[in-house]
Amino acid sequence: MSAEEQARQLGLDFSVPVDPRPWKPCRRAGGLLFTAGQTSRITGKLGDGLSVEQGYAAAREALERVLRAVRTEAASLDLVRPVKLLGFINAAPGFTETPAVLHGATDLLHAVFGPEAGAHARSAIGVASLPRGAAVEIEAVFELLEP
Amino acid sequence: MSAEEQARQLGLDFSVPVDPRPWKPCRRAGGLLFTAGQTSRITGKLGDGLSVEQGYAAAREALERVLRAVRTEAASLDLVRPVKLLGFINAAPGFTETPAVLHGATDLLHAVFGPEAGAHARSAIGVASLPRGAAVEIEAVFELLEP
Amino acid sequence: MSAEEQARQLGLDFSVPVDPRPWKPCRRAGGLLFTAGQTSRITGKLGDGLSVEQGYAAAREALERVLRAVRTEAASLDLVRPVKLLGFINAAPGFTETPAVLHGATDLLHAVFGPEAGAHARSAIGVASLPRGAAVEIEAVFELLEP
Repeated sequence: MSAEEQARQLGLDFSVPVDPRPWKPCRRAGGLLFTAGQTSRITGKLGDGLSVEQGYAAAREALERVLRAVRTEAASLDLVRPVKLLGFINAAPGFTETPAVLHGATDLLHAVFGPEAGAHARSAIGVASLPRGAAVEIEAVFELLEP
Repeated sequence: MSAEEQARQLGLDFSVPVDPRPWKPCRRAGGLLFTAGQTSRITGKLGDGLSVEQGYAAAREALERVLRAVRTEAASLDLVRPVKLLGFINAAPGFTETPAVLHGATDLLHAVFGPEAGAHARSAIGVASLPRGAAVEIEAVFELLEP
Repeated sequence: MSAEEQARQLGLDFSVPVDPRPWKPCRRAGGLLFTAGQTSRITGKLGDGLSVEQGYAAAREALERVLRAVRTEAASLDLVRPVKLLGFINAAPGFTETPAVLHGATDLLHAVFGPEAGAHARSAIGVASLPRGAAVEIEAVFELLEP
């Protein structure tokens, strides 16, 4: 199954318009796509109210919006593959399970692109605050496949 | 008006030398320019002393230094366009208006390059601490235009 | 001396396997290599227990693992050069010496690649928490040299 078909099978809804903002959801440079940071709708702080499971769900939400951002520049997910995720986790200073939270994004990438094409480098960083109190924000680099 | 002319009209001063450091202000790789993080002279913490307006001014300061860094690798701003900003805001844990702070950088990019060529992806992240207590630090990716 | 020889002379051990994880230690896209964030074994928080000297050693540790990650995609360090480091320092809110900590990574890059080829852009950001309580995490962009 193609990445595009797999994404729809998983219930990802690409008909939702990306919110208009003074900046762009995704910018192309050469063969690379750089997305803006995409926040989860889930708000709150890991290690201070939110569980790792809630954080995992938030990372998946943010990644779903990353894919939507990518599709504003690439006609289809079948024309791209992930390269790198930078995940920011809204976390209390003592919280150290940021990788388990970001698995919500990694697992969704593997589900959509398959484990090989979906493989990516990533970082999971705990930060003091995110826009609107979001639990997770993810920015990504994707590669455009040669036609 | 060209980006270079627009920058001068806005009073940006490119005669100020970039501080010598053990690292480079900007590094070219293929058609991309990666800048080092550039801090604002304004110091302090958003949500704990600094207002959003002061943060906005700090983001503009940091972006002015980003443009100076870009010009150490590109002969002129007319030869580049912005791709992505990663903005770190020195913020108290409760502070959630990091996007409003980073608008200081986005607005300056739009003023210099125009709204279309100046469009860029970006992330606004609140962090625990920045070098020398700076209020804002911004790193950027620019693209070299084909000659 | 080549970068590869210099690294071995410095005692860097590339026989240590990179830990298997659900994500990749390094991903290639075009002529660029994007590494996953690599953490130090040294744990703790700068400005709250750890000294700048301990942080410097942690940054060097993290960078050593960055080089190991790069070598999973490039056959030899002689085929690459550093472009950019993004260093996250596990720091108490009042800590402002993040650049001095990241020098541990910058100095190692200069030692391995020499001051000119090893020159790089970088950012040093203090954050609330890192995986497993690591003191430093570094992600990097390297460039593949033309053959």
